[in-house]
Amino acid sequence: MPVIELFETNNPVDDADLQFDANGRLRHLLTLRGLKREQITALLDRAETFLSPPGQNAVRSNTLHGVTVGNLFFEPSTRTRASFEIAAKRLGADLINLDVNTSSRKKGESILDTIYTLQAMQVDVFVVRDASAGVPAYIARNINNRVMILNAGEADVSHPTQGLLDLLTIRRHKDNFEDLTVAIVGDVAHSRVARSASEGLMTMGVGELRLISPDALAPEQDDFPGAKILHNLNDGLRGADVVMALRIQRERIDSLDEIPGMDEYFANFGISHERMKLAAPAAIVMHPGPMNRGIEIESSLADGPSSVIVEQVTNGVAVRMALLEEVVKTMEKK
Amino acid sequence: MPVIELFETNNPVDDADLQFDANGRLRHLLTLRGLKREQITALLDRAETFLSPPGQNAVRSNTLHGVTVGNLFFEPSTRTRASFEIAAKRLGADLINLDVNTSSRKKGESILDTIYTLQAMQVDVFVVRDASAGVPAYIARNINNRVMILNAGEADVSHPTQGLLDLLTIRRHKDNFEDLTVAIVGDVAHSRVARSASEGLMTMGVGELRLISPDALAPEQDDFPGAKILHNLNDGLRGADVVMALRIQRERIDSLDEIPGMDEYFANFGISHERMKLAAPAAIVMHPGPMNRGIEIESSLADGPSSVIVEQVTNGVAVRMALLEEVVKTMEKK
Amino acid sequence: MPVIELFETNNPVDDADLQFDANGRLRHLLTLRGLKREQITALLDRAETFLSPPGQNAVRSNTLHGVTVGNLFFEPSTRTRASFEIAAKRLGADLINLDVNTSSRKKGESILDTIYTLQAMQVDVFVVRDASAGVPAYIARNINNRVMILNAGEADVSHPTQGLLDLLTIRRHKDNFEDLTVAIVGDVAHSRVARSASEGLMTMGVGELRLISPDALAPEQDDFPGAKILHNLNDGLRGADVVMALRIQRERIDSLDEIPGMDEYFANFGISHERMKLAAPAAIVMHPGPMNRGIEIESSLADGPSSVIVEQVTNGVAVRMALLEEVVKTMEKK
Repeated sequence: MPVIELFETNNPVDDADLQFDANGRLRHLLTLRGLKREQITALLDRAETFLSPPGQNAVRSNTLHGVTVGNLFFEPSTRTRASFEIAAKRLGADLINLDVNTSSRKKGESILDTIYTLQAMQVDVFVVRDASAGVPAYIARNINNRVMILNAGEADVSHPTQGLLDLLTIRRHKDNFEDLTVAIVGDVAHSRVARSASEGLMTMGVGELRLISPDALAPEQDDFPGAKILHNLNDGLRGADVVMALRIQRERIDSLDEIPGMDEYFANFGISHERMKLAAPAAIVMHPGPMNRGIEIESSLADGPSSVIVEQVTNGVAVRMALLEEVVKTMEKK
Repeated sequence: MPVIELFETNNPVDDADLQFDANGRLRHLLTLRGLKREQITALLDRAETFLSPPGQNAVRSNTLHGVTVGNLFFEPSTRTRASFEIAAKRLGADLINLDVNTSSRKKGESILDTIYTLQAMQVDVFVVRDASAGVPAYIARNINNRVMILNAGEADVSHPTQGLLDLLTIRRHKDNFEDLTVAIVGDVAHSRVARSASEGLMTMGVGELRLISPDALAPEQDDFPGAKILHNLNDGLRGADVVMALRIQRERIDSLDEIPGMDEYFANFGISHERMKLAAPAAIVMHPGPMNRGIEIESSLADGPSSVIVEQVTNGVAVRMALLEEVVKTMEKK
Repeated sequence: MPVIELFETNNPVDDADLQFDANGRLRHLLTLRGLKREQITALLDRAETFLSPPGQNAVRSNTLHGVTVGNLFFEPSTRTRASFEIAAKRLGADLINLDVNTSSRKKGESILDTIYTLQAMQVDVFVVRDASAGVPAYIARNINNRVMILNAGEADVSHPTQGLLDLLTIRRHKDNFEDLTVAIVGDVAHSRVARSASEGLMTMGVGELRLISPDALAPEQDDFPGAKILHNLNDGLRGADVVMALRIQRERIDSLDEIPGMDEYFANFGISHERMKLAAPAAIVMHPGPMNRGIEIESSLADGPSSVIVEQVTNGVAVRMALLEEVVKTMEKK
């Protein structure tokens, strides 16, 4: 085991490479960067086998029998945590939830000591959510050669399983990524969901990606190479095939000079039935949840026929099952 | 999915009907109202098959293999939550505990969004406890046609699985409900336990039901049709076959003008060996737990031969196993 | 069920005897006192069968199928709790985590009522951690004849599964306890780890046991019969085959008059590469975790080749699996 180094900043290139084992197989999922189109396609194909027809029971298998998955959430979460727990259990894994008191973790060392302890108990897969950038990669760099790390949400940097479920949801409704115009609307600057969706869409060769935000919440172009950054919602929605509203933190709205309240936010950047008339005829509406109904999205639109928000959740379990199966292959026959 | 309506008040008639599917089978358990005597009897018969002989291991089966049960407790609970968790696991179900931060739930919408999310993950059965009246029925009205709701305690309105375990406990000690006098003692006004027990006992045709409370804690007659409301414990216990003490909140005692403290509460409404001499010779003593020993019940009486308090807990697991099996039948072959 | 008595102080002799059933088999593990050398050896032998070769999957069996294990932690814990959870699940048991609000437990009665409730739900094994001395034995004295109690940490009195894992770790590196000099360093006065390790080592016939502490943290000789109490670290380490650093509470350091801060604590009582030159050539370094790196132990030493700290954690799961199997034998064929 190496001498532990101080907590270090994220290194995008390394993180992407770090995900693959010596045989080029996906061992960790830290970011969607570095995954090839055919690798993503294979994961989505596998995920689709875990979707049951309407009205049928959930799909199960026993391929993770004997594997121990640890949910290590350093940031609160109900839905992502439940999604991983359900995915692991439906594959027959042992799942343990580890309640970690972040107040007791001040330095990089103690994160690693927690990991070393759980690794010594032969926890095989760590599902990690953390409010600090770089934590999943930092862990991945310092573990032994049998453990796998899945990033379940990392600061505003990355949420790669969300990106995969978004891709799967789009693919089930639209034929070719090349022909699609996708509009992501809201607080793009602070959104790990937007970053991972963008990375995945670019790899899949999306036709056009538009990011629409108030000025104060607009991202740096460097963070979203190839995307169009817009500030007017009507311009952004025109002809879009896929519209993804992002969750906004209410405290962020209050801090906007130009947009003094929630009503004005909805008026300018909320997705509504009326506004969706600008989009392509069969456009779908997405949201990563949990929604602020009436702020970033009109409530009846969220529940209407163009919404695929509930499907996103279902697809999330399927994608996580596919991913768990995939990374666990790297520990076989060692 | 319907447009979500504002949180609505409880509607007793609808709630009772809402529990059955199109084929008249029990799909949700929201209240004991609306269950016929033969339906309750069938549940109790089934529950008895889950009781092991003394000194034997717990009864298990695998009939819920592949079913996911979610414990959704919006109000703290150790015993009821553990009882449902154990019941689900002994039937081979996957069980997930969902820690829900009630502070983050201000409006009806967000309860439903939580449910929609978990429903989309194919959680099949929701075990719901909530401090607000009407929540279980509100959820049942708004879910899809595969999900089942079990009320695990609803404000002061209903606690139907407690009612079933009370009926099972009485039935295992006494021959005919028709011949029985049952006395429920304590804070009846605020007790969901008393309400569900009363509803169940009335359906089973109990001979006489007496409710004994200090004036300030006495219920409305309309809430307990057919019961006798009394204010003197000796009158209430005389000749009773079953005596059920209710848990009292200590803050409620302090608010009683006429009963200034715990000692006086015990002196006037506590169940003791001495007092039980008024009851029928083979009378049994019940309590839903957790007990305030020395306040609503004499400690040595709670541990003595007439007490069936521990059996109530054991019967609780059995009743919940029977109920889980029963409602899951409604999702088959859809 | 007996009338419940007031919470009583620990009685060492009784506690040791209380652990065995009428046939002399280990039914509870409350303390290492009272266990014979051959009994400990048999547990360690069994535990070794649960250690997988490097690079292999964790060892599993199904010998606890149908058994319910309850984790009842009245004091926070991540690692010991996870270790028991993993051990129980790898043996096929049902595991439930019971979150107990200690603020709601003021009197001995309510601990027992919690236990009686869970016992009535046919929870078979209780894993108990408590900040008060005497709780595990108190529970063991008052339960029915099918339930088993495992002490997972009791005030500063006892942590017997930690003691067993320490013995296993030493045995895997050293040939004979009789030939060994073991040095335990740090806050011995308040350490349940030191007490259980000492009891185990004495039973195994350790050659020499040294306890090295600042004056203010030195134990009473009566608590550690047969051990040498020292105050100088160099004297304590000279020729030692095994060096165990204890975790120190930072608030304890601040309260030391003679040692005003962490740097001085490390200078006088921290285990370092430099200091370890005094020990025997192949000496091993142990720590129960979680470590304060740079205070009680030099960080690079903790990660170096003489450290067996990670093995201790792995051995902890194995020892707990062996123990669960052993005590569950006492419930068979009843």
